[in-house]
Amino acid sequence: MSKVLMKGNEAIAESAIRAGCRYFFGYPITPQNEIPEYLSSALPKAGGVFLQAESEIASINMVFGAAATGVRVMTSSSSPGISLKQEGISYIAAARLPCVIVNIMRAGPGLGGILPGQADYFQATRGGGNGDYRHVVYAPSTVQEAADLMFDAFDTAERYRMPVMLLGDGMLGQMMEPVEFKEALPLNTEEKDWTLTGTGNKRKPRKIYSLDVNPVTLEEHNLFLADMYKEITEKETRVECEGIEKADLVVVAYGTTARIVKEASDMCKNEGIKVGIIRPITLWPYPDKVFETIGSDCKGVLCVELSLGQMVDDVKIAVNGRQPVHFYGRTGGMVPGADEIVDQIKRIYSTGRSK
Amino acid sequence: MSKVLMKGNEAIAESAIRAGCRYFFGYPITPQNEIPEYLSSALPKAGGVFLQAESEIASINMVFGAAATGVRVMTSSSSPGISLKQEGISYIAAARLPCVIVNIMRAGPGLGGILPGQADYFQATRGGGNGDYRHVVYAPSTVQEAADLMFDAFDTAERYRMPVMLLGDGMLGQMMEPVEFKEALPLNTEEKDWTLTGTGNKRKPRKIYSLDVNPVTLEEHNLFLADMYKEITEKETRVECEGIEKADLVVVAYGTTARIVKEASDMCKNEGIKVGIIRPITLWPYPDKVFETIGSDCKGVLCVELSLGQMVDDVKIAVNGRQPVHFYGRTGGMVPGADEIVDQIKRIYSTGRSK
Amino acid sequence: MSKVLMKGNEAIAESAIRAGCRYFFGYPITPQNEIPEYLSSALPKAGGVFLQAESEIASINMVFGAAATGVRVMTSSSSPGISLKQEGISYIAAARLPCVIVNIMRAGPGLGGILPGQADYFQATRGGGNGDYRHVVYAPSTVQEAADLMFDAFDTAERYRMPVMLLGDGMLGQMMEPVEFKEALPLNTEEKDWTLTGTGNKRKPRKIYSLDVNPVTLEEHNLFLADMYKEITEKETRVECEGIEKADLVVVAYGTTARIVKEASDMCKNEGIKVGIIRPITLWPYPDKVFETIGSDCKGVLCVELSLGQMVDDVKIAVNGRQPVHFYGRTGGMVPGADEIVDQIKRIYSTGRSK
Amino acid sequence: MSKVLMKGNEAIAESAIRAGCRYFFGYPITPQNEIPEYLSSALPKAGGVFLQAESEIASINMVFGAAATGVRVMTSSSSPGISLKQEGISYIAAARLPCVIVNIMRAGPGLGGILPGQADYFQATRGGGNGDYRHVVYAPSTVQEAADLMFDAFDTAERYRMPVMLLGDGMLGQMMEPVEFKEALPLNTEEKDWTLTGTGNKRKPRKIYSLDVNPVTLEEHNLFLADMYKEITEKETRVECEGIEKADLVVVAYGTTARIVKEASDMCKNEGIKVGIIRPITLWPYPDKVFETIGSDCKGVLCVELSLGQMVDDVKIAVNGRQPVHFYGRTGGMVPGADEIVDQIKRIYSTGRSK
Repeated sequence: MSKVLMKGNEAIAESAIRAGCRYFFGYPITPQNEIPEYLSSALPKAGGVFLQAESEIASINMVFGAAATGVRVMTSSSSPGISLKQEGISYIAAARLPCVIVNIMRAGPGLGGILPGQADYFQATRGGGNGDYRHVVYAPSTVQEAADLMFDAFDTAERYRMPVMLLGDGMLGQMMEPVEFKEALPLNTEEKDWTLTGTGNKRKPRKIYSLDVNPVTLEEHNLFLADMYKEITEKETRVECEGIEKADLVVVAYGTTARIVKEASDMCKNEGIKVGIIRPITLWPYPDKVFETIGSDCKGVLCVELSLGQMVDDVKIAVNGRQPVHFYGRTGGMVPGADEIVDQIKRIYSTGRSK
Repeated sequence: MSKVLMKGNEAIAESAIRAGCRYFFGYPITPQNEIPEYLSSALPKAGGVFLQAESEIASINMVFGAAATGVRVMTSSSSPGISLKQEGISYIAAARLPCVIVNIMRAGPGLGGILPGQADYFQATRGGGNGDYRHVVYAPSTVQEAADLMFDAFDTAERYRMPVMLLGDGMLGQMMEPVEFKEALPLNTEEKDWTLTGTGNKRKPRKIYSLDVNPVTLEEHNLFLADMYKEITEKETRVECEGIEKADLVVVAYGTTARIVKEASDMCKNEGIKVGIIRPITLWPYPDKVFETIGSDCKGVLCVELSLGQMVDDVKIAVNGRQPVHFYGRTGGMVPGADEIVDQIKRIYSTGRSK
Repeated sequence: MSKVLMKGNEAIAESAIRAGCRYFFGYPITPQNEIPEYLSSALPKAGGVFLQAESEIASINMVFGAAATGVRVMTSSSSPGISLKQEGISYIAAARLPCVIVNIMRAGPGLGGILPGQADYFQATRGGGNGDYRHVVYAPSTVQEAADLMFDAFDTAERYRMPVMLLGDGMLGQMMEPVEFKEALPLNTEEKDWTLTGTGNKRKPRKIYSLDVNPVTLEEHNLFLADMYKEITEKETRVECEGIEKADLVVVAYGTTARIVKEASDMCKNEGIKVGIIRPITLWPYPDKVFETIGSDCKGVLCVELSLGQMVDDVKIAVNGRQPVHFYGRTGGMVPGADEIVDQIKRIYSTGRSK
Repeated sequence: MSKVLMKGNEAIAESAIRAGCRYFFGYPITPQNEIPEYLSSALPKAGGVFLQAESEIASINMVFGAAATGVRVMTSSSSPGISLKQEGISYIAAARLPCVIVNIMRAGPGLGGILPGQADYFQATRGGGNGDYRHVVYAPSTVQEAADLMFDAFDTAERYRMPVMLLGDGMLGQMMEPVEFKEALPLNTEEKDWTLTGTGNKRKPRKIYSLDVNPVTLEEHNLFLADMYKEITEKETRVECEGIEKADLVVVAYGTTARIVKEASDMCKNEGIKVGIIRPITLWPYPDKVFETIGSDCKGVLCVELSLGQMVDDVKIAVNGRQPVHFYGRTGGMVPGADEIVDQIKRIYSTGRSK
């Protein structure tokens, strides 16, 4: 298939269908509305169901219900709308059901603004909902990567029976870029041994639930999840690195911010500063290990985010005191220019290892 | 006033009224139901309003509305119910309004069980809602401390115009202990310059909102909040430490878990192991600084939680690679015995500084 | 007290407080917003509670809850909002609780327009909710009468323990007229034997419910209600009549429409046509009996409404074939002029008794 | 096709699919749960969508949305659930959209009981929602008739673009009878000129709405509806009569109650009383005209309902004073025996024309 020029939101929607998604439940919010708009037309044509529900709460619980039948189902929203879904996500994670949640982040907190943000990192990676649960978080930095990761999102969700989040920012959702779609997957009609599809009086009923008042079995369930999360950490962590072994300074960024960092890194090369880049593609599991390969020349690690500093916590944990960790962020919908980041890099470079 | 024997939940409710709270909006959930039950009777007698709303969403938004008028207002719930309030909390934080939120945690994730848990630490300290916001989190370990901290909660909320959370676990809510209440505060009728109380045609209308589509002013607002959070970190951090300068091993725990750790520590003394204890009283701001005073004899830092490991992230950040960090947790409503913790301590002690 | 110039909506609100109402739960809708606006400021000052709920459903159920404690409570809305409350009204009627519901009707159906209408007559008099229940419906035609009837509304509601509706149209709500308020009633603190106010461990718990799966007792309950409705019909029916014994023609109208009819009647006098007027003040119970006193000269009965014809059903039942019944209505927010009604009267008069 | 033995609820569901219904949105309530249960399995197999929504409100508004696209869509509920849908029904009627609403009535008012009732007659025939609107109401008395009328319901709804109600009682829903289904209709794929199906950039956008703040056009819309209602009254009224021209007494009843009346009528024949029967099949439009054919021997008209007297209003209007009108009703889920009705008939017969 040749490339087509598309908005990130549209590419995410088209790719979802190609990845086998046939059910969407959501409620509108800027800047992700092209996703439901696209699916409201395309899903019925693909034999699927698009439903705009009464609220974000209703939609995530419809996702819960559909997921229990084994179909590929998704919802999408933006920051405040994702906040409303936290209880539902916790329930789905507890009940071990696969689904995909897209968050096209806007500036916060509260209703905030409609321009891009990255301030839902904590919510996405630690679970804004209650209890010990995790979900894989993919953070694409281009429209093409967003389209590709939708396939991974549905596959990973199904493989581990868990919610998976695609975390973009408003820029990614709104920018147009050429994208080449993967071929549509044939619908998986293979029977699963856990889905609620009616017994047809031929088998015993199955149960899907998140309530368990017996502490012994509930702890067992939590330990099962912990083991699964450990396996996921080992197998599913993804990261893109560039020259970190010999870097004078390493910059960490994800999503569209990483593209600006790349530009800043190129600008620094001309000035004789070797800038390494770590771009986590999965925000959970976080690519801790790769930070151990940062070379001894490195004078510091700079984390750049569209927030007041959230991923920087994971950077600190990963760095574990080996290098000083610095932070630079913009908020409110403001996006840093490459020159701003170059300034930060130079400042840190010149003051050496002093934190 | 002499001591009375009371459940933690009841003491929290009684103390709220003494601290000047006159408005409560909530929705029932175990194991915190004694709070609304107590207030449903006591608040009207105190000239206040108790309202059981249609849902958790409705109740947090009623808190939002009441807070805008400058009164002392609270809600309470337990884990899944708190998840449902995340959007509202983010809005209240963005709009800079004071209120108190009590979370008496149960085991999760999802609907989970009704026995105690501490697995909402991430949600409480990083904001399960969207955007860059923080709220002070008090973590009492006794009924007396819970009663006392309710005064601090309302004062801090009002001083900084922000939501403040009291984070307990089911054990704290249900246990009965003698408690001595502070004297009731006189109601603060001082006029504030930001409340929405009607202009009476005597002044210009004021506005309270969380939406700001102008990125310049929204970033300014975020930076204002960042400065405020920094000030709070400096002034409001609270922690209780015991023998950490000369400890062979330091154990970190909060809430009722810290009481079990204390018991374990005493048991270790007899075996010649010097166990230091760090008990954060505020979970945010986190008492990072105190970790720098851990002595050089310390072979490791053990974090104990009723979770699969959440506060341990903050411990790692605070320790910053100086000592190996270990974790021990129970979940599902299971509570570790002091002997279990002693076993963990001995295991770490015997293997030395090897992580 | 001297007269003050006030909008109908404001007079209704002020009078509610004077009649002892201390609790209001509602959700905004034009053209009745002056009622909640007034009460949001005045109720707290009177020691009461004003609450804007999440929805119309929530607000009517809060009315249900408050009514169960024996306090004087009301809600107000306009046509579509009242539709949403029908389930709740049926529950309150079934549970035998006193409350006052104000409907300031707008043009329908559906969202309709914001101009006046009288097309909720069926809903008001037959119960838009399920089951056999009735509630008294007062239909004031002046601001003064609206203010006065609020006292009757609360008294009747309490006397019979039932919902009572004040049914106005947008004109009544928005027009300004001089009004003289009755003196405020002292709050009735007399203990009732059916309210849920907490047992204080001194009496047996009481129950208030609308569910009864035993058909024998449920039928008994229905027959009890039927007897009560019969008693109310005998004692509480109210009507204003003018010259119906000797009329050439009788016009029936309620609310502000009756004022236009009065004007038309005066205009007819000059033309030698004797027009009698029946103005029901209670729409349920309906003043059937008075129709029997219409004189033998009467050539027909004309019903005028801001609808396509609803009260005309009750007119036909009351007339029972003795005179031909005619109808004239305007809808969509259009209000007939007196001259239009005169035209109708002349047309009927000239064609004699032929229907 | 041969006959199958089926519950009324199941037959209604099966017949809906055969009549082309492919969308169902609802919320569970006894005694109609076999309808959603059947459709939850059968609709997806027929390429349709079954969705259990968050609430009755959500489900009727989903019906609203689906109807706007021109598909055949339905909801079903029982008394209190239907009360919650009144606002939505008024909106759908105002927006001129076709849909089918099934009400399997239970005893009321309020939550009432789960046994059969007929006390939602007023709500069904006069519109429990706001404004001047009507919808056709079919009242089947056998399972076979219920199955057949579902075809009429969908056809009538589509022909006039209006909601149509099938009004049964719990007996009808729960009883099993042999039923022969009509052959499934081919899906109507003919394009309509009013549906919202996306312009495909090939035509101008269409609008569907119920709000119109211009009183002139809103009145025009109401008059258009009035003309349509008149046409429907002329063309769609249905009734079953038996021996009313020569009857000593006429009994009026609908639904399953009419079957008991038939039995009573047969019993009276043996005693020399000629009992005529009027069984309205459409409750709106009401078969007024047929009452004019009641013969001059008739000593009275008895209306029998599972209510305290609702259809009796329409009987009085239709009779218009020509005969005395009597009423007999049972409520709370109690169903009269044929002998009870015979007693009533004898009582009226013996006292002659005295009312």
